Amino acid sequence: MAKEKKLVEAITSMDEDFAQWYTDVVKKAELTGYTSVKGCMVIKPAGYAIWENIQKELDARFKETGVENVYLPMFIPESLLQKEKDHVEGFAPEVAWVTHGGLEELQERLCVRPTSETLFCDLYAKEIQSHRDLPKVYNQWCSVVRWEKTTRPFLRSREFLWQEGHTAHATAQEAEERTIQMLNIYADFCEQVLAIPVIKGRKTDKEKFAGAEATYTIESLMHDGKALQSGTSHNFGDGFARAFGIQYTDKENKLQYVHQTSWGMTTRMIGAIIMVHGDNSGLKLPPRIAPVQAMIIPIQQKKEGVLEKAAQLEEMLRQAGVRVKTDVTDKSPGFKFAEQEMRGIPVRIECGPKDIEAGQVVVARRDTGEKITVKMDELAVKVPEILDGIQENMLETARAHRDSHTYVATNYEEFVGTINEKPGFIKAMWCGDQACEDKIKEDTAATSRCIPFEQEQLSDVCVCCGKPAKKMVYWGRAY
Amino acid sequence: MAKEKKLVEAITSMDEDFAQWYTDVVKKAELTGYTSVKGCMVIKPAGYAIWENIQKELDARFKETGVENVYLPMFIPESLLQKEKDHVEGFAPEVAWVTHGGLEELQERLCVRPTSETLFCDLYAKEIQSHRDLPKVYNQWCSVVRWEKTTRPFLRSREFLWQEGHTAHATAQEAEERTIQMLNIYADFCEQVLAIPVIKGRKTDKEKFAGAEATYTIESLMHDGKALQSGTSHNFGDGFARAFGIQYTDKENKLQYVHQTSWGMTTRMIGAIIMVHGDNSGLKLPPRIAPVQAMIIPIQQKKEGVLEKAAQLEEMLRQAGVRVKTDVTDKSPGFKFAEQEMRGIPVRIECGPKDIEAGQVVVARRDTGEKITVKMDELAVKVPEILDGIQENMLETARAHRDSHTYVATNYEEFVGTINEKPGFIKAMWCGDQACEDKIKEDTAATSRCIPFEQEQLSDVCVCCGKPAKKMVYWGRAY
Repeated sequence: MAKEKKLVEAITSMDEDFAQWYTDVVKKAELTGYTSVKGCMVIKPAGYAIWENIQKELDARFKETGVENVYLPMFIPESLLQKEKDHVEGFAPEVAWVTHGGLEELQERLCVRPTSETLFCDLYAKEIQSHRDLPKVYNQWCSVVRWEKTTRPFLRSREFLWQEGHTAHATAQEAEERTIQMLNIYADFCEQVLAIPVIKGRKTDKEKFAGAEATYTIESLMHDGKALQSGTSHNFGDGFARAFGIQYTDKENKLQYVHQTSWGMTTRMIGAIIMVHGDNSGLKLPPRIAPVQAMIIPIQQKKEGVLEKAAQLEEMLRQAGVRVKTDVTDKSPGFKFAEQEMRGIPVRIECGPKDIEAGQVVVARRDTGEKITVKMDELAVKVPEILDGIQENMLETARAHRDSHTYVATNYEEFVGTINEKPGFIKAMWCGDQACEDKIKEDTAATSRCIPFEQEQLSDVCVCCGKPAKKMVYWGRAY
Repeated sequence: MAKEKKLVEAITSMDEDFAQWYTDVVKKAELTGYTSVKGCMVIKPAGYAIWENIQKELDARFKETGVENVYLPMFIPESLLQKEKDHVEGFAPEVAWVTHGGLEELQERLCVRPTSETLFCDLYAKEIQSHRDLPKVYNQWCSVVRWEKTTRPFLRSREFLWQEGHTAHATAQEAEERTIQMLNIYADFCEQVLAIPVIKGRKTDKEKFAGAEATYTIESLMHDGKALQSGTSHNFGDGFARAFGIQYTDKENKLQYVHQTSWGMTTRMIGAIIMVHGDNSGLKLPPRIAPVQAMIIPIQQKKEGVLEKAAQLEEMLRQAGVRVKTDVTDKSPGFKFAEQEMRGIPVRIECGPKDIEAGQVVVARRDTGEKITVKMDELAVKVPEILDGIQENMLETARAHRDSHTYVATNYEEFVGTINEKPGFIKAMWCGDQACEDKIKEDTAATSRCIPFEQEQLSDVCVCCGKPAKKMVYWGRAY
């Protein structure tokens, strides 16, 4: 009982200290572990299984659009990194350098990839000669390294896992279409699978990727009102192609530069799942991404027939396509309940001698806490229905939270007041000058999240300088 | 036609120059690409798709035995690497060192993981307290780096992909059982999926893993008669546990050291597939691992109805569970045939106007070259049967080759003569002294491949020194 109490007590309330709550959940739900490597994390089985599901879902969506997977080296020679000016300026300050191989000093330093644009360009320069070689639509699943000063599990760590897609196209139009297509895949995936609603839009020049012509983003809102950039898709135009000499002969036998894109999503999304859906009992996983969707918890499991019945129900649910487990450890039911809630398993199925006698079980929803009595012979139909209901409810709950924490500011006083008192997104008009972005960031620590595709005309003037406005922008403090 | 000719001409005959033949196949089948990073390779879509299938098959087999996937950092602090004496001696000379992060020099050098025993031990020392925490059966899919001087695609490169399983158990017996269990999984996978027969056995002390108590191996024989170590499984006993202080309290509340294992298989197996099955027309993929199992090649595809029929057949085969594609490019059929053969696609389905009229197609087997006429409405039944037949035939062919290239030597003269004249495995008795292994290696460049589980008593004396023999050993020159 002492250990049970500890499990529940040890979580900080999210309203009291959101950052500490996050750290507690990550630890108590056993998503990550500590390591002797500063700034890096161990992703433990419960965390990695979420990543495996993210990979499976995204990879299938990618392949439907013709994406092919490849693997490129983890090292980038310093001279290769330097080929595109904006790109090297953006990344060089935060990379790790390999200087020795075996017992010898290298002639040229190698950086551990922070991203692989330069390597893909190097490959494409060799592989692309003719219009017949286009398009190239490659992706890789790998880890990347960025030497961050302050780190937090999933949100910011020196090494993280991601996928990075890199494509080359004959025309600017085709490249733009691919950029938007991948952004839409990310957005659909977030909403349909992770139950996280997103704002789609374009980054300002200040916030765009180093070397990109345009960066598109999906932005989501965490429970504490801070924004999280959740996936980006970049159109490079022919900038990298010119720097790396990636040319093809078109149908008229003329030399042309290719047009390129890149797009990525990372283990950061596990942090988003925690911060969008979690509560004071712990993690709350949307059923479509949950490694375990239903946990059967036997009550008085030493009584005759209880474990046998639990095993029957487990098999019945597995046949129905539910990812299900039974907790047969010798912990108390109360402890098992707390653990299942902490780990975010969408439904708990309680099954004891009385239930067996009555031919029914209690199904408890993790999202609402609701307890539903279900006849055992209807379980295989009802549980998938309940899981669908949870998925839908979690998306709607997250959307309602996001919408009720999205504010409008039409003048600077209002803007500053809102950002300080009401954490969330602020929609406000902008003149297009970086000076205003800089001032807002300095005064409020808020950044422009994106210029949303769905524009509204909130007023005619910039919320910061009062000059004529060009665009409506989503602003917010961000992770 | 000029290009067609080039495609076929460019392959060196395997009997003329096996090493060059290998390089040609890797390049022409588009498995890897060159990169500016010395000693590293780009794994291209056709190569990576094979690795994805290897991952899928192995991962499912692992998970059936309770394996959980995790991800650990790619960096190992120098002090951590040094904790186990034999281990650091084995690996330190061939690792890459990170000395700078961002603009600053690191206080302690980090090596890029050559293998992750030390990181798993560091994790287990923190995670394991009680017998309730055991066993831990973790695995990770990742890349590792070993600073090799001479490199070849898949067989030996500075960075390669693999899985590494690391387990901790309460008893020595349980650790030994897990070691053998994983070796058996590798062996079954090689035989059943890759159609590569293997010899299971134990490595001699000279050849075992740095830090292991026992290393078990599966050894396969390439077409040129050289051996390839194809997967290893190590029993560490409690050596690492003592070096890292990994202890648990048993049921009697006494402190005990855990017993550990590790086991791995790598992208090297793609090299094995090439060298076991390939021929002078190129790659030959076993159907169970082939990303594309059947390629439909339309003949006179501009004639009315040809492409429509090809699309119908493709859909019919897909419904039947065949991984199928249609080559609709504007290349000539002859060129497409050569390409399909080069890429090792198990069957080709030729479909032209005459075939359509007759309601049948020609199915060409990549393994035997046999052409089989199949009625269109029987295709969905026949093609899976033909694929099963190819899978079986490829395993039997490889086994026959291996067996006919396995020799026995009972004295040293015979041993040296055989190794120089008849490339293959040599079975010979051994006294157990490393001095004899050293002498054999110096005289013949052959190494002890393994002490096979299936022992035979070929004679009473060591083939090298003539002293009483303890074990029969498989010897051979190896990759």
